[in-house]
Amino acid sequence: MTNISHARTGTPDSHAGLNAAITASAKAVEAVLDELLPRPHGLHGRVHEAMRYATFAGGKRLRPFLVQHCARLFGVDDAQALRAAAAIEVLHTYSLVHDDLPAMDDDALRRGRPTTHIAYDEATAILAGDALLTVAFEILSDPKTHPSAEVRVQLIARLAEAAGSNGMIGGQMIDMQAPDRRFGAEEVKLLQRLKTGQLFEFSCEAGAILGKRPDADRERLRLYAHDFGLVFQITDDLLDVTSTAEKTGKAVGKDKDQGKATLVSLMGLEGARAEAEKIARRAVDGLGPYGPAADDLRALLMFLLDRDS
Amino acid sequence: MTNISHARTGTPDSHAGLNAAITASAKAVEAVLDELLPRPHGLHGRVHEAMRYATFAGGKRLRPFLVQHCARLFGVDDAQALRAAAAIEVLHTYSLVHDDLPAMDDDALRRGRPTTHIAYDEATAILAGDALLTVAFEILSDPKTHPSAEVRVQLIARLAEAAGSNGMIGGQMIDMQAPDRRFGAEEVKLLQRLKTGQLFEFSCEAGAILGKRPDADRERLRLYAHDFGLVFQITDDLLDVTSTAEKTGKAVGKDKDQGKATLVSLMGLEGARAEAEKIARRAVDGLGPYGPAADDLRALLMFLLDRDS
Repeated sequence: MTNISHARTGTPDSHAGLNAAITASAKAVEAVLDELLPRPHGLHGRVHEAMRYATFAGGKRLRPFLVQHCARLFGVDDAQALRAAAAIEVLHTYSLVHDDLPAMDDDALRRGRPTTHIAYDEATAILAGDALLTVAFEILSDPKTHPSAEVRVQLIARLAEAAGSNGMIGGQMIDMQAPDRRFGAEEVKLLQRLKTGQLFEFSCEAGAILGKRPDADRERLRLYAHDFGLVFQITDDLLDVTSTAEKTGKAVGKDKDQGKATLVSLMGLEGARAEAEKIARRAVDGLGPYGPAADDLRALLMFLLDRDS
Repeated sequence: MTNISHARTGTPDSHAGLNAAITASAKAVEAVLDELLPRPHGLHGRVHEAMRYATFAGGKRLRPFLVQHCARLFGVDDAQALRAAAAIEVLHTYSLVHDDLPAMDDDALRRGRPTTHIAYDEATAILAGDALLTVAFEILSDPKTHPSAEVRVQLIARLAEAAGSNGMIGGQMIDMQAPDRRFGAEEVKLLQRLKTGQLFEFSCEAGAILGKRPDADRERLRLYAHDFGLVFQITDDLLDVTSTAEKTGKAVGKDKDQGKATLVSLMGLEGARAEAEKIARRAVDGLGPYGPAADDLRALLMFLLDRDS
């Protein structure tokens, strides 16, 4: 089992194997995204351009990584996993495009580049987001994603649930109201579980759905993803406090400026870090039944604990 | 066959039978929508409220009418047709919520009520729109919509196509750029076919998909819907010129104010009216194979020619 206390003081070098796996997964899903997103054409080509601008903005592609590596646990065909991964990534991208809008988080910068409504305009950004959300379901509905209609429709049902008003969108709704409310740790955890956790959960579950695995596997991967989401969020909040805009490619210190409670503001730097490590340990343990096949999924947690961007 | 020249000079009374059918269909789909949309709950209840506010705003529910009446041609279970109809109606509603935003058409009034971003706020309207789009796919993915996963996934694939960047969203993208361009009749027809036509086409096609009908039926209903969409749009443009805000419940004269070309501005009032009648006649003829079972679909075209709101 991975040594957590070592990982905590790890250097980027100690994650060399995982970094290579992340890069390989990102490249693979980007090739599929390039194939699946429409090339700009016609009088409406501007929306295609904006969809691509938002999607091809770099990033670690963590959700595709989760889909691919969970799918591999069950011997799922990689081409199928990559299509499901692409669907989740465009859905994630739509949420970023809309969250960045002036009426929402009003961010001008993401991953070091102008956000979509800055590079184009607000109307185009709204439409590009809508189109990315729509194409996610189109990708999943295609027989190339899986020959079984039953499997495809299960993927669609779960994605709609995870991304909907009781999932990701609900989380963003809570987040929009956060500056006016005094949230405690429970509310902040709920917000984060909805806003970012649900899509991580679906990313992992998608692997089990593609592999036609029983509920026990779906549940196990959901638990891993739930914990993964918490670790992701806490380390993201830590970065918001400790990092620079140069490293993260986006504005930092925003949560505090907006008066939003985070687990870091509620538990303190050290308390939050300790919580993240505790949760990571639990998540690593939960993958026990998959043996060494799940090593990359374990290593990804250690990677998050050491992230600097 | 319905007498078109009579219909042209018809009074509201001459559509009494159809009016009753439209009211019955609207009531039925509204009951299903009430069941399917989440009731406001939790910290994120505001987005549920806004989804309901936008959806329960009256209106003729033409798309649900088309789904229901096309489905009946093939003996589809009414409960199934109403669920598909509800999915299309929430998708249509999302498009109105987003189109009304300040960055898009900037409308403060729809059907005589404040638009969603006025009644709530812009962020909530964006999220409610996103959630309505998402729940459309969730509804279609549910086995209650049809026991066959193959049928459900076909509905989803076609809806995603009709509503996506090469469908409805593409049409809105073209529309946003219209004030800066000098569109001719071909461009205006393309814009409208995408922006409103695609969803009408899917509404009709959905009936054939639910009935597991061969491509010939799907194609025939698509043609009817295509013509229906043109008649709808031309009569809508005529209203924009000739009606009052009081009757239509929204701002009128906007196309001209924004310098947007319409078939009315390009062909003149009489020319556009003649074109609408010609297309309606073609659409009525195309339903020949379905005999009297399609009478309501024929009557709906006559209704559009006489509409005053």
